[in-house]
Amino acid sequence: MKPLKIGKAFTLMESGPVVLVTTSDGRKDNIMTISWTMVVDFTPILAMTTGDWNYSFAALRRTQECVIAIPTVDMLDKVVGIGTCSGADTDKFAKFKLTPVKAKVVRAPLIKESLANIECKVVDIVKRHSIVVLEGVAAHIDPSRKEKRAVHAVGDGTFIVDGRKLSRRRMMASRIPSGI
Amino acid sequence: MKPLKIGKAFTLMESGPVVLVTTSDGRKDNIMTISWTMVVDFTPILAMTTGDWNYSFAALRRTQECVIAIPTVDMLDKVVGIGTCSGADTDKFAKFKLTPVKAKVVRAPLIKESLANIECKVVDIVKRHSIVVLEGVAAHIDPSRKEKRAVHAVGDGTFIVDGRKLSRRRMMASRIPSGI
Repeated sequence: MKPLKIGKAFTLMESGPVVLVTTSDGRKDNIMTISWTMVVDFTPILAMTTGDWNYSFAALRRTQECVIAIPTVDMLDKVVGIGTCSGADTDKFAKFKLTPVKAKVVRAPLIKESLANIECKVVDIVKRHSIVVLEGVAAHIDPSRKEKRAVHAVGDGTFIVDGRKLSRRRMMASRIPSGI
Repeated sequence: MKPLKIGKAFTLMESGPVVLVTTSDGRKDNIMTISWTMVVDFTPILAMTTGDWNYSFAALRRTQECVIAIPTVDMLDKVVGIGTCSGADTDKFAKFKLTPVKAKVVRAPLIKESLANIECKVVDIVKRHSIVVLEGVAAHIDPSRKEKRAVHAVGDGTFIVDGRKLSRRRMMASRIPSGI
Protein backbone atom coordinates (compact mmCIF):
# COMPACT_ATOMS: atom_id res chain seq x y z
CA MET A 1 0.00 0.00 0.00
CA LYS A 2 1.32 3.41 -1.03
CA PRO A 3 0.01 6.71 0.34
CA LEU A 4 -2.76 8.38 -1.68
CA LYS A 5 -3.36 12.13 -1.39
CA ILE A 6 -6.34 12.53 0.92
CA GLY A 7 -7.89 15.02 -1.51
CA LYS A 8 -8.20 12.23 -4.07
CA ALA A 9 -9.83 9.68 -1.74
CA PHE A 10 -13.39 10.72 -2.64
CA THR A 11 -12.82 9.38 -6.17
CA LEU A 12 -12.60 5.88 -4.66
CA MET A 13 -16.10 6.28 -3.24
CA GLU A 14 -18.08 8.49 -5.62
CA SER A 15 -18.81 5.76 -8.15
CA GLY A 16 -20.67 3.75 -5.50
CA PRO A 17 -18.58 0.60 -4.96
CA VAL A 18 -19.55 -1.92 -2.31
CA VAL A 19 -16.96 -1.47 0.45
CA LEU A 20 -15.57 -3.28 3.47
CA VAL A 21 -15.46 -1.31 6.72
CA THR A 22 -13.09 -2.39 9.47
CA THR A 23 -13.28 -1.52 13.15
CA SER A 24 -11.25 -2.42 16.20
CA ASP A 25 -12.67 -2.42 19.70
CA GLY A 26 -9.18 -2.67 21.16
CA ARG A 27 -9.44 -6.43 21.65
CA LYS A 28 -10.31 -7.63 18.18
CA ASP A 29 -10.69 -6.44 14.62
CA ASN A 30 -13.91 -6.85 12.68
CA ILE A 31 -15.17 -6.21 9.13
CA MET A 32 -18.58 -5.38 7.69
CA THR A 33 -19.79 -5.08 4.11
CA ILE A 34 -21.55 -1.80 3.31
CA SER A 35 -23.08 -0.71 0.02
CA TRP A 36 -25.08 2.26 1.34
CA THR A 37 -22.44 5.00 1.18
CA MET A 38 -22.15 8.50 -0.29
CA VAL A 39 -19.64 11.30 -0.70
CA VAL A 40 -20.60 14.44 1.25
CA ASP A 41 -17.59 16.62 0.48
CA PHE A 42 -14.38 16.40 -1.55
CA THR A 43 -12.09 16.74 1.47
CA PRO A 44 -13.40 13.89 1.85
CA ILE A 45 -16.43 13.77 4.07
CA LEU A 46 -18.21 10.44 3.53
CA ALA A 47 -21.52 9.08 4.78
CA MET A 48 -22.79 5.56 5.28
CA THR A 49 -25.99 4.06 6.58
CA THR A 50 -25.48 1.70 9.50
CA GLY A 51 -26.74 1.15 13.01
CA ASP A 52 -27.27 -1.25 15.89
CA TRP A 53 -28.25 -4.04 13.52
CA ASN A 54 -24.57 -4.30 12.53
CA TYR A 55 -22.33 -5.83 15.21
CA SER A 56 -19.48 -3.50 14.13
CA PHE A 57 -21.56 -0.44 14.94
CA ALA A 58 -20.83 -0.63 18.68
CA ALA A 59 -17.07 -0.48 18.05
CA LEU A 60 -17.52 2.25 15.45
CA ARG A 61 -19.51 4.39 17.86
CA ARG A 62 -17.24 3.78 20.82
CA THR A 63 -13.92 4.31 19.05
CA GLN A 64 -15.22 6.93 16.58
CA GLU A 65 -12.95 5.39 13.96
CA CYS A 66 -13.03 2.95 11.08
CA VAL A 67 -11.29 2.10 7.81
CA ILE A 68 -13.13 1.91 4.50
CA ALA A 69 -11.45 -0.67 2.25
CA ILE A 70 -12.24 -0.86 -1.48
CA PRO A 71 -12.44 -4.46 -2.67
CA THR A 72 -12.33 -5.57 -6.31
CA VAL A 73 -14.30 -8.13 -8.27
CA ASP A 74 -11.91 -11.00 -7.50
CA MET A 75 -12.88 -10.52 -3.83
CA LEU A 76 -16.66 -10.70 -4.41
CA ASP A 77 -17.22 -13.99 -2.58
CA LYS A 78 -15.37 -12.64 0.45
CA VAL A 79 -17.41 -9.41 0.29
CA VAL A 80 -20.70 -11.35 0.23
CA GLY A 81 -19.49 -13.79 2.88
CA ILE A 82 -18.47 -10.94 5.20
CA GLY A 83 -21.90 -9.36 4.67
CA THR A 84 -23.78 -12.50 5.60
CA CYS A 85 -22.15 -13.48 8.90
CA SER A 86 -21.54 -11.62 12.14
CA GLY A 87 -18.45 -10.57 14.07
CA ALA A 88 -20.40 -11.64 17.17
CA ASP A 89 -19.38 -15.25 16.53
CA THR A 90 -16.86 -15.07 13.66
CA ASP A 91 -13.28 -13.81 13.30
CA LYS A 92 -13.80 -12.47 9.80
CA PHE A 93 -10.12 -11.73 9.07
CA ALA A 94 -9.33 -15.41 9.80
CA LYS A 95 -12.39 -16.89 8.11
CA PHE A 96 -11.95 -14.91 4.89
CA LYS A 97 -8.13 -15.05 4.86
CA LEU A 98 -7.67 -11.28 4.90
CA THR A 99 -4.65 -9.58 6.41
CA PRO A 100 -5.06 -6.70 8.85
CA VAL A 101 -2.35 -4.05 8.42
CA LYS A 102 -1.64 -1.31 10.96
CA ALA A 103 -3.13 1.99 9.84
CA LYS A 104 -1.31 5.32 10.09
CA VAL A 105 -3.79 7.35 12.15
CA VAL A 106 -6.64 5.13 13.39
CA ARG A 107 -6.65 1.88 15.34
CA ALA A 108 -8.93 0.01 12.93
CA PRO A 109 -6.82 -2.01 10.48
CA LEU A 110 -6.31 -1.61 6.74
CA ILE A 111 -7.11 -4.69 4.64
CA LYS A 112 -3.93 -5.63 2.77
CA GLU A 113 -5.74 -7.50 -0.04
CA SER A 114 -8.00 -4.59 -1.03
CA LEU A 115 -7.27 -2.08 -3.80
CA ALA A 116 -7.32 0.89 -1.43
CA ASN A 117 -8.06 1.91 2.15
CA ILE A 118 -9.36 5.16 3.62
CA GLU A 119 -8.75 5.77 7.33
CA CYS A 120 -11.76 7.58 8.79
CA LYS A 121 -12.83 9.41 11.95
CA VAL A 122 -16.50 9.77 12.86
CA VAL A 123 -17.67 13.38 12.44
CA ASP A 124 -21.28 12.80 13.45
CA ILE A 125 -23.92 10.10 13.81
CA VAL A 126 -27.31 11.34 12.59
CA LYS A 127 -29.31 8.95 14.78
CA ARG A 128 -32.77 9.59 13.37
CA HIS A 129 -31.65 8.36 9.94
CA SER A 130 -28.85 5.95 11.01
CA ILE A 131 -26.41 7.98 8.91
CA VAL A 132 -22.77 7.97 10.03
CA VAL A 133 -20.75 10.93 8.73
CA LEU A 134 -17.01 10.27 8.41
CA GLU A 135 -13.92 12.30 7.62
CA GLY A 136 -11.17 10.58 5.67
CA VAL A 137 -7.85 11.33 7.39
CA ALA A 138 -5.42 9.14 5.44
CA ALA A 139 -5.63 7.00 2.32
CA HIS A 140 -3.59 4.21 0.78
CA ILE A 141 -3.65 2.47 -2.59
CA ASP A 142 -1.99 -0.60 -4.04
CA PRO A 143 -0.78 0.56 -7.47
CA SER A 144 0.74 -2.86 -8.25
CA ARG A 145 -2.66 -4.57 -8.24
CA LYS A 146 -3.76 -5.77 -11.67
CA GLU A 147 -7.47 -6.17 -10.91
CA LYS A 148 -8.87 -2.72 -10.28
CA ARG A 149 -12.55 -3.23 -11.09
CA ALA A 150 -14.87 -2.46 -8.20
CA VAL A 151 -18.32 -4.03 -7.84
CA HIS A 152 -21.64 -2.31 -7.24
CA ALA A 153 -24.39 -4.00 -5.22
CA VAL A 154 -27.82 -3.83 -6.83
CA GLY A 155 -29.56 -4.91 -3.64
CA ASP A 156 -31.29 -7.97 -5.08
CA GLY A 157 -28.34 -10.32 -4.67
CA THR A 158 -26.74 -9.31 -7.97
CA PHE A 159 -23.65 -7.16 -8.48
CA ILE A 160 -22.51 -4.97 -11.37
CA VAL A 161 -18.81 -5.07 -12.21
CA ASP A 162 -17.08 -1.88 -13.39
CA GLY A 163 -17.16 -1.75 -17.19
CA ARG A 164 -15.38 0.64 -19.50
CA LYS A 165 -14.32 4.12 -18.49
CA LEU A 166 -15.38 7.21 -20.45
CA SER A 167 -13.73 10.59 -20.05
CA ARG A 168 -15.61 13.86 -20.04
CA ARG A 169 -12.79 15.76 -18.33
CA ARG A 170 -12.77 18.54 -20.90
CA MET A 171 -16.52 19.17 -20.63
CA MET A 172 -16.31 19.08 -16.84
CA ALA A 173 -13.13 21.10 -16.36
CA SER A 174 -14.95 23.85 -14.45
CA ARG A 175 -16.39 21.40 -11.91
CA ILE A 176 -13.40 19.23 -11.02
CA PRO A 177 -11.49 20.19 -7.85
CA SER A 178 -7.94 21.31 -8.66
CA GLY A 179 -5.32 18.57 -8.62
CA ILE A 180 -7.84 15.76 -9.24
CA MET B 1 -43.04 4.35 -18.46
CA LYS B 2 -44.68 1.47 -16.58
CA PRO B 3 -45.24 1.45 -12.81
CA LEU B 4 -42.50 -0.18 -10.73
CA LYS B 5 -43.26 -1.53 -7.24
CA ILE B 6 -42.02 1.08 -4.81
CA GLY B 7 -40.32 -1.63 -2.74
CA LYS B 8 -38.01 -2.34 -5.67
CA ALA B 9 -37.02 1.28 -6.31
CA PHE B 10 -33.95 1.13 -4.02
CA THR B 11 -32.36 -1.33 -6.47
CA LEU B 12 -32.19 1.50 -9.03
CA MET B 13 -30.08 3.55 -6.59
CA GLU B 14 -27.99 1.13 -4.54
CA SER B 15 -25.35 0.56 -7.21
CA GLY B 16 -24.47 4.26 -7.21
CA PRO B 17 -25.51 5.57 -10.63
CA VAL B 18 -25.19 9.24 -11.47
CA VAL B 19 -28.78 10.53 -11.50
CA LEU B 20 -30.82 13.46 -12.75
CA VAL B 21 -33.04 15.19 -10.19
CA THR B 22 -35.98 17.27 -11.37
CA THR B 23 -37.82 19.96 -9.46
CA SER B 24 -40.68 22.29 -10.23
CA ASP B 25 -41.15 25.61 -8.53
CA GLY B 26 -44.68 25.89 -9.95
CA ARG B 27 -43.54 28.16 -12.79
CA LYS B 28 -40.83 26.12 -14.41
CA ASP B 29 -39.18 22.72 -14.31
CA ASN B 30 -35.47 22.27 -13.70
CA ILE B 31 -32.94 19.42 -13.65
CA MET B 32 -29.70 18.86 -11.78
CA THR B 33 -27.08 16.11 -12.05
CA ILE B 34 -26.24 14.43 -8.74
CA SER B 35 -23.74 11.66 -8.09
CA TRP B 36 -23.61 11.96 -4.29
CA THR B 37 -26.54 9.72 -3.33
CA MET B 38 -27.15 6.77 -1.01
CA VAL B 39 -29.87 4.34 0.00
CA VAL B 40 -30.94 4.76 3.64
CA ASP B 41 -33.75 2.18 3.79
CA PHE B 42 -35.36 -0.35 1.49
CA THR B 43 -38.79 1.32 1.57
CA PRO B 44 -37.02 3.35 -0.05
CA ILE B 45 -35.53 6.15 1.95
CA LEU B 46 -32.79 7.82 -0.12
CA ALA B 47 -30.24 10.50 0.71
CA MET B 48 -28.37 12.96 -1.45
CA THR B 49 -25.89 15.72 -0.79
CA THR B 50 -26.97 19.08 -2.10
CA GLY B 51 -27.43 22.63 -0.90
CA ASP B 52 -27.64 26.30 -1.77
CA TRP B 53 -24.86 25.96 -4.34
CA ASN B 54 -27.36 24.16 -6.61
CA TYR B 55 -30.01 26.42 -8.14
CA SER B 56 -32.57 23.57 -7.88
CA PHE B 57 -32.15 23.43 -4.11
CA ALA B 58 -34.48 26.39 -3.49
CA ALA B 59 -37.33 24.65 -5.33
CA LEU B 60 -36.54 21.34 -3.65
CA ARG B 61 -36.69 22.93 -0.21
CA ARG B 62 -39.78 24.99 -0.90
CA THR B 63 -41.85 22.26 -2.56
CA GLN B 64 -40.39 19.37 -0.51
CA GLU B 65 -40.58 17.26 -3.65
CA CYS B 66 -38.40 16.04 -6.50
CA VAL B 67 -38.04 13.22 -9.02
CA ILE B 68 -34.89 11.12 -9.30
CA ALA B 69 -34.44 9.97 -12.91
CA ILE B 70 -31.96 7.23 -13.82
CA PRO B 71 -30.13 8.01 -17.07
CA THR B 72 -28.17 5.47 -19.11
CA VAL B 73 -24.83 5.67 -20.89
CA ASP B 74 -26.33 6.94 -24.17
CA MET B 75 -27.41 10.04 -22.21
CA LEU B 76 -23.96 10.78 -20.74
CA ASP B 77 -23.35 14.03 -22.65
CA LYS B 78 -26.73 15.34 -21.49
CA VAL B 79 -25.93 14.30 -17.90
CA VAL B 80 -22.60 16.14 -17.97
CA GLY B 81 -24.13 19.13 -19.77
CA ILE B 82 -26.92 19.39 -17.19
CA GLY B 83 -24.32 19.25 -14.41
CA THR B 84 -22.24 22.07 -15.86
CA CYS B 85 -24.86 24.77 -16.45
CA SER B 86 -27.46 26.39 -14.20
CA GLY B 87 -31.24 26.56 -14.23
CA ALA B 88 -30.79 30.21 -13.25
CA ASP B 89 -30.24 31.09 -16.92
CA THR B 90 -31.04 27.87 -18.83
CA ASP B 91 -34.19 25.90 -19.59
CA LYS B 92 -32.50 22.53 -19.29
CA PHE B 93 -35.42 20.47 -20.63
CA ALA B 94 -35.32 22.56 -23.83
CA LYS B 95 -31.54 22.80 -24.11
CA PHE B 96 -30.97 19.06 -23.66
CA LYS B 97 -34.07 17.95 -25.59
CA LEU B 98 -35.61 16.07 -22.68
CA THR B 99 -39.35 15.59 -22.26
CA PRO B 100 -41.04 16.39 -18.93
CA VAL B 101 -43.86 13.96 -18.16
CA LYS B 102 -46.48 14.54 -15.47
CA ALA B 103 -45.72 12.51 -12.37
CA LYS B 104 -48.33 10.59 -10.40
CA VAL B 105 -47.88 12.09 -6.92
CA VAL B 106 -45.43 15.01 -7.03
CA ARG B 107 -45.37 18.16 -9.15
CA ALA B 108 -41.78 17.73 -10.34
CA PRO B 109 -41.76 16.02 -13.74
CA LEU B 110 -40.53 12.61 -14.78
CA ILE B 111 -37.95 12.55 -17.58
CA LYS B 112 -39.40 10.51 -20.42
CA GLU B 113 -36.03 9.60 -21.96
CA SER B 114 -34.56 8.09 -18.78
CA LEU B 115 -34.62 4.39 -17.88
CA ALA B 116 -36.58 4.95 -14.68
CA ASN B 117 -37.98 7.65 -12.43
CA ILE B 118 -38.57 7.72 -8.66
CA GLU B 119 -41.02 10.32 -7.33
CA CYS B 120 -39.76 11.58 -3.96
CA LYS B 121 -40.92 13.65 -0.99
CA VAL B 122 -38.43 15.33 1.32
CA VAL B 123 -38.35 13.64 4.73
CA ASP B 124 -35.67 15.83 6.26
CA ILE B 125 -32.85 18.21 5.40
CA VAL B 126 -29.84 17.64 7.66
CA LYS B 127 -28.50 21.17 7.29
CA ARG B 128 -25.17 20.75 9.04
CA HIS B 129 -24.10 18.18 6.45
CA SER B 130 -26.19 19.34 3.45
CA ILE B 131 -27.82 15.92 3.35
CA VAL B 132 -31.36 15.74 1.95
CA VAL B 133 -33.31 12.65 3.05
CA LEU B 134 -36.06 11.57 0.64
CA GLU B 135 -38.85 9.02 0.62
CA GLY B 136 -39.69 7.39 -2.70
CA VAL B 137 -43.47 7.48 -3.12
CA ALA B 138 -43.90 6.16 -6.68
CA ALA B 139 -41.60 4.65 -9.29
CA HIS B 140 -41.72 4.10 -13.04
CA ILE B 141 -39.55 2.14 -15.45
CA ASP B 142 -39.31 1.90 -19.24
CA PRO B 143 -39.03 -1.85 -19.87
CA SER B 144 -38.89 -1.34 -23.66
CA ARG B 145 -35.56 0.48 -23.46
CA LYS B 146 -32.67 -1.46 -24.95
CA GLU B 147 -29.84 0.51 -23.31
CA LYS B 148 -30.03 -0.20 -19.59
CA ARG B 149 -26.44 0.48 -18.52
CA ALA B 150 -26.12 3.22 -15.90
CA VAL B 151 -22.97 5.29 -15.46
CA HIS B 152 -21.02 5.97 -12.28
CA ALA B 153 -19.19 9.26 -11.77
CA VAL B 154 -15.64 8.88 -10.48
CA GLY B 155 -15.39 12.57 -9.59
CA ASP B 156 -12.35 13.35 -11.73
CA GLY B 157 -14.28 13.89 -14.96
CA THR B 158 -14.35 10.21 -15.87
CA PHE B 159 -17.30 7.84 -15.71
CA ILE B 160 -17.54 4.07 -15.32
CA VAL B 161 -20.17 2.31 -17.40
CA ASP B 162 -22.02 -0.70 -15.93
CA GLY B 163 -20.20 -3.87 -16.94
CA ARG B 164 -21.28 -7.47 -16.49
CA LYS B 165 -23.68 -8.59 -13.80
CA LEU B 166 -22.80 -11.35 -11.34
CA SER B 167 -25.38 -13.11 -9.20
CA ARG B 168 -24.82 -14.10 -5.57
CA ARG B 169 -28.53 -14.43 -4.86
CA ARG B 170 -28.18 -17.89 -3.33
CA MET B 171 -25.37 -16.82 -0.95
CA MET B 172 -27.34 -13.71 0.01
CA ALA B 173 -30.81 -15.22 0.32
CA SER B 174 -31.04 -14.41 4.04
CA ARG B 175 -30.30 -10.70 3.46
CA ILE B 176 -32.54 -9.86 0.50
CA PRO B 177 -35.92 -8.24 1.35
CA SER B 178 -38.82 -10.51 0.35
CA GLY B 179 -40.17 -9.97 -3.15
CA ILE B 180 -36.95 -8.41 -4.48
